[in-house]
Amino acid sequence: MGAAPMQALASFRNDYSEGAHPRLLQALVRASAAQHTGYGLDAHSVRAAELILARCGQPQAQVHLLAGGTQTNLLAISAFLRPHEAVIAANSGHIATHETGAIEATGHKVLVTPHVDGKLTPDGVRALLAENTSEHMVKPRLVYVSNTTELGTIYRKAELQALRALCDQAGLLLYLDGARIGCALTAAGNDLSLADIAALTHAFYIGGTKNGALLGEALVVVERSLQPDLRYLIKQRGAMLAKGMVVGAQFEALFEDELFFELAAHANAMAQRLQDGLKAAGVPLLIDSPSNQVFPILTHAQIQALAGFTSFERWSPYDDSAAVIRLVCSWATGQEAVDGLLSCITGLFRHDPPRSATGS
Amino acid sequence: MGAAPMQALASFRNDYSEGAHPRLLQALVRASAAQHTGYGLDAHSVRAAELILARCGQPQAQVHLLAGGTQTNLLAISAFLRPHEAVIAANSGHIATHETGAIEATGHKVLVTPHVDGKLTPDGVRALLAENTSEHMVKPRLVYVSNTTELGTIYRKAELQALRALCDQAGLLLYLDGARIGCALTAAGNDLSLADIAALTHAFYIGGTKNGALLGEALVVVERSLQPDLRYLIKQRGAMLAKGMVVGAQFEALFEDELFFELAAHANAMAQRLQDGLKAAGVPLLIDSPSNQVFPILTHAQIQALAGFTSFERWSPYDDSAAVIRLVCSWATGQEAVDGLLSCITGLFRHDPPRSATGS
Amino acid sequence: MGAAPMQALASFRNDYSEGAHPRLLQALVRASAAQHTGYGLDAHSVRAAELILARCGQPQAQVHLLAGGTQTNLLAISAFLRPHEAVIAANSGHIATHETGAIEATGHKVLVTPHVDGKLTPDGVRALLAENTSEHMVKPRLVYVSNTTELGTIYRKAELQALRALCDQAGLLLYLDGARIGCALTAAGNDLSLADIAALTHAFYIGGTKNGALLGEALVVVERSLQPDLRYLIKQRGAMLAKGMVVGAQFEALFEDELFFELAAHANAMAQRLQDGLKAAGVPLLIDSPSNQVFPILTHAQIQALAGFTSFERWSPYDDSAAVIRLVCSWATGQEAVDGLLSCITGLFRHDPPRSATGS
Amino acid sequence: MGAAPMQALASFRNDYSEGAHPRLLQALVRASAAQHTGYGLDAHSVRAAELILARCGQPQAQVHLLAGGTQTNLLAISAFLRPHEAVIAANSGHIATHETGAIEATGHKVLVTPHVDGKLTPDGVRALLAENTSEHMVKPRLVYVSNTTELGTIYRKAELQALRALCDQAGLLLYLDGARIGCALTAAGNDLSLADIAALTHAFYIGGTKNGALLGEALVVVERSLQPDLRYLIKQRGAMLAKGMVVGAQFEALFEDELFFELAAHANAMAQRLQDGLKAAGVPLLIDSPSNQVFPILTHAQIQALAGFTSFERWSPYDDSAAVIRLVCSWATGQEAVDGLLSCITGLFRHDPPRSATGS
Repeated sequence: MGAAPMQALASFRNDYSEGAHPRLLQALVRASAAQHTGYGLDAHSVRAAELILARCGQPQAQVHLLAGGTQTNLLAISAFLRPHEAVIAANSGHIATHETGAIEATGHKVLVTPHVDGKLTPDGVRALLAENTSEHMVKPRLVYVSNTTELGTIYRKAELQALRALCDQAGLLLYLDGARIGCALTAAGNDLSLADIAALTHAFYIGGTKNGALLGEALVVVERSLQPDLRYLIKQRGAMLAKGMVVGAQFEALFEDELFFELAAHANAMAQRLQDGLKAAGVPLLIDSPSNQVFPILTHAQIQALAGFTSFERWSPYDDSAAVIRLVCSWATGQEAVDGLLSCITGLFRHDPPRSATGS
Repeated sequence: MGAAPMQALASFRNDYSEGAHPRLLQALVRASAAQHTGYGLDAHSVRAAELILARCGQPQAQVHLLAGGTQTNLLAISAFLRPHEAVIAANSGHIATHETGAIEATGHKVLVTPHVDGKLTPDGVRALLAENTSEHMVKPRLVYVSNTTELGTIYRKAELQALRALCDQAGLLLYLDGARIGCALTAAGNDLSLADIAALTHAFYIGGTKNGALLGEALVVVERSLQPDLRYLIKQRGAMLAKGMVVGAQFEALFEDELFFELAAHANAMAQRLQDGLKAAGVPLLIDSPSNQVFPILTHAQIQALAGFTSFERWSPYDDSAAVIRLVCSWATGQEAVDGLLSCITGLFRHDPPRSATGS
Repeated sequence: MGAAPMQALASFRNDYSEGAHPRLLQALVRASAAQHTGYGLDAHSVRAAELILARCGQPQAQVHLLAGGTQTNLLAISAFLRPHEAVIAANSGHIATHETGAIEATGHKVLVTPHVDGKLTPDGVRALLAENTSEHMVKPRLVYVSNTTELGTIYRKAELQALRALCDQAGLLLYLDGARIGCALTAAGNDLSLADIAALTHAFYIGGTKNGALLGEALVVVERSLQPDLRYLIKQRGAMLAKGMVVGAQFEALFEDELFFELAAHANAMAQRLQDGLKAAGVPLLIDSPSNQVFPILTHAQIQALAGFTSFERWSPYDDSAAVIRLVCSWATGQEAVDGLLSCITGLFRHDPPRSATGS
Repeated sequence: MGAAPMQALASFRNDYSEGAHPRLLQALVRASAAQHTGYGLDAHSVRAAELILARCGQPQAQVHLLAGGTQTNLLAISAFLRPHEAVIAANSGHIATHETGAIEATGHKVLVTPHVDGKLTPDGVRALLAENTSEHMVKPRLVYVSNTTELGTIYRKAELQALRALCDQAGLLLYLDGARIGCALTAAGNDLSLADIAALTHAFYIGGTKNGALLGEALVVVERSLQPDLRYLIKQRGAMLAKGMVVGAQFEALFEDELFFELAAHANAMAQRLQDGLKAAGVPLLIDSPSNQVFPILTHAQIQALAGFTSFERWSPYDDSAAVIRLVCSWATGQEAVDGLLSCITGLFRHDPPRSATGS
């Protein structure tokens, strides 16, 4: 295994460290042997779209298979908006923080409002609407949410319904970034189905990269008035793969049975096992996550020690002596890896017990 | 084989109908099992870059692995230019005709001048320099060429040297679109090496999609002043794959021995066999192609009949009774497929003999 | 007169060398003494819009007063188009040649087709429609014409009707750049009124800068679906003047009686006197201009000699021994200046007679 | 006076209600009679630039005369930055709040940090630098400040020096929006000269529109590496006036003696008289302003009553019973207008005494 990590433990840095699930690789290898129509018009892409639309219960919707999340976000948002129109997002939103200004690079401002547990609230949207009221300011037009959120939390059906009702009342579009939608739909406490999301949003995407595919996101455009000419925009942004079947065959494999949901459920289960173990060990958490990302608060010394065993992201400062890290499980995370990590962390506490949370 | 084409013959529509060469698939499957650093910083991508740079003889150059050709062109060009600077291209250039205004969408004008056998000439560049001379016009700054060209022709070393000399004199950058650079470097009559191209251009890309990869292009930035911060721009344009090893593992396999060149040489050999057969049958050609694209001139009736057997692109009108079609061979084209196509075309001539060319 | 030109003769370089007509200056000085609502919502701008709309016979149209022609073109075109949509223009069109890629800088490609006497023809439009037919190419959406054209020629009503009919059939918008619309509407042979132009286009602008104003163009948006939110876009592009009354008061003065047309008619009359004199002296012309721009063909020696007396633009090469220059008259050009120029040119011919035209 | 306001009192809405100072109008009328070179290359623009540079003590700097503030900001910032580079501004900054996303429309993100008395602080800049550290985030590159700020406050020399020192250390450009720079440089407590500002910034602009001109801002580019090709960008953004002398003649008149500073000093004096009167009457203020904008806190009933007499901007909510309004004086504000306003406000208090401030 040439690219073996130097850590004794597997990495918990993110949910895209591994390649693809074996069944997706098999589908890809099989499809690779045949000739296909190019540019996403191949039989695998067409069937993947049909399977997705059937799940969504929206036969009139469009599906476009794209390569990555930032690409999908910038493409959709710039396709849907006129130049003076802006996006509303939580200040923790991926487009607001970790996409290198991709939305602004297409000409649109991202207006932000403080998140509540990683989520955008109707009150937050209303505050931005109240501030942006004339032609001297941008015109809010699209509401961006992600599910799961950047903090691993999920939207309840009533929350999405409230956002959509506000959007309808204020003439806004509702767009959902589903990079981790699989984990959202299989999280503890979730009461949304894919069909619910399709019914409640004007457009959203289903993330493959973070749920078992080598690459690929499926943009679903439900609102009819947003559908025309999207393939022109996909080509123009450099997002149209010549061999579109590469993504098509993988999404076909994910959705021809329950695989997409099974992979996400596994990632959640591993993360919950990890989070439960941390709680049992007395480790304070930034947030009680229902999905595949866990956010323990550790002292700087603990973090430094842990970094010798595995890799993870330093999420945010916490206070003078501690910080938040992020541990992520994926479809490929094994139970023994989780248990190994828990042993390792528990071991750290022998001489340096877990700090107690001071709030938030 | 679920996606089997309906034609009796394989498709000659393009060089991206098939998936990837088996050795690339194996490399990908192998790499998929391990954990990797994300965003193109994995060991496979790093090694692929090293192998490419060694071939280029430019250890100080940068390599960035990207997903597709339009993406690579728009990314590189928009990264290299200030807002008022423009590109010079032949009027047949891919960025000028078949990328849905991707360059303009990043804010830059593409100035065009008539091609000569698909190629840009120093005289063409000089004509545009002579027309664009003040702040009321765009400022030409980057010269775009593709090798092979859209017509399958290739640049000779002396031609590239002349363009580079003009660029140096006029303060222009020379950028080469190498979507089919493999076929160029293995074409009959070629006198350029990868190292020559690296030495003669400021930046260029090596096409993987059209030469045996599922997807992937390797942007090589030779000029030091163009290198800073390119990863920011890659992220911003949505071109940074989370699982960068998908492209890295394939380029590693292409360049760890001679595979990249062998695949291209095969495509050329098949196309030359096809072209020779067409010539022998008396079929006029738009151009005598040295590479993997062939441009026969057929009557409308012949074209219609042929479309019943295989698929291909209608390239351009020719005259009232005839048109040009394009037939493309790839690394995956078998000799029997070529011979079958030739038989088929010869068969068409029993009642409808080949027209004689009236000039081009 | 501190800025007196060094030439013995007035300049014939363009129609924006002088400031504003005295009646406009008076209106401006008078308005300057009062307080006004800002941003183009003042009483002068409102009344100017009313006067213009009454002339146009389009009470439902919108008028926006802007500062300059390039600004107006880029604002209107970028407001009207989605990102993948393109403009069709004659290759001599101002946006295609002399606006430093302003349209491309907003993301849109300008497709060009050869002009006929400076004009765009339905056949030219059809040729571009035939070439741009799929999502791999831009989507033509807006047809740009200018009246008068860059060569001083004018569109006949039947020509505009034919373009509009084609636009309606092909789903295109028709936009007219009226930087010199005053001279067009008062040219010999014109059969269009302002109301005709308003009825035949979706949007157009009335040029003030080249017809007696210090600055200012009036964008008229006839098509209802293009009207929403334009003030947002005007602000965003930096085109909203805080003291909008500066343009408003001038357009009010131009349109409260016949002044706008009188100034243009004067410019045309002076240019026709000049052109008649040149013809009488045997000077060949690039084109028989009906408006305020004249294009004589002179030998290089004659051009060099003339440059000692007045200033003008070198328009284009003609042949080895001769070139085309442009002489422009304005609302401010005096008859004695024209006669002086004619004497001067005639004098040049004593030892260097006018060349005979060899065709155009 | 056709556009007489309906209020009994003059408007205090802003400092661009009136036209131009009589001496500027005279200069403009005089210049209008002569012929000029176009596009800002006329003798008046050239001399205005010389006068400004002499004041700045920066003979190597460039001056570009433009039409308005948003135009100047978007032009300069988009000219100075590469696509992935971002601006740092206070959250009260004009580009962040009241320019309809003009900076984002050129592709650049504006990062904001809380203002302190309307000002950007080194700590605020450092916080944004600490958050934006990799290619997944934009790269901060330009620091935007305005002087006076949106709250009428001014930067002390030590504050600008501290910002510049931080910029030098972090590789950032310092840009100053001087829409009200005249009022800043003549405010009570100011210790900066125009030469200081030129020495401490890489580029800044001198506002004419809000200080006695009909329109016009003078962009001063001190940093040599930012100077090349700016005229291309000015043309491309639609910011190059054909009759550039319109702005040139006005700036010449403003800077050929002390007029620019005298006009600003008058505006400040009137506002201070107003603010002193408000204080004497017991009116709480949002901030103790040293310049031409005053921010009293009034009850909703008082605001409604006052709106019957004059016009002003409602600035921000304050608490349940009160709000902040903005009163602005200009070069054209008469002492009797100020005294009339004070009488009017005092009168309002007979039955509705001024509320007492509850903090900040």
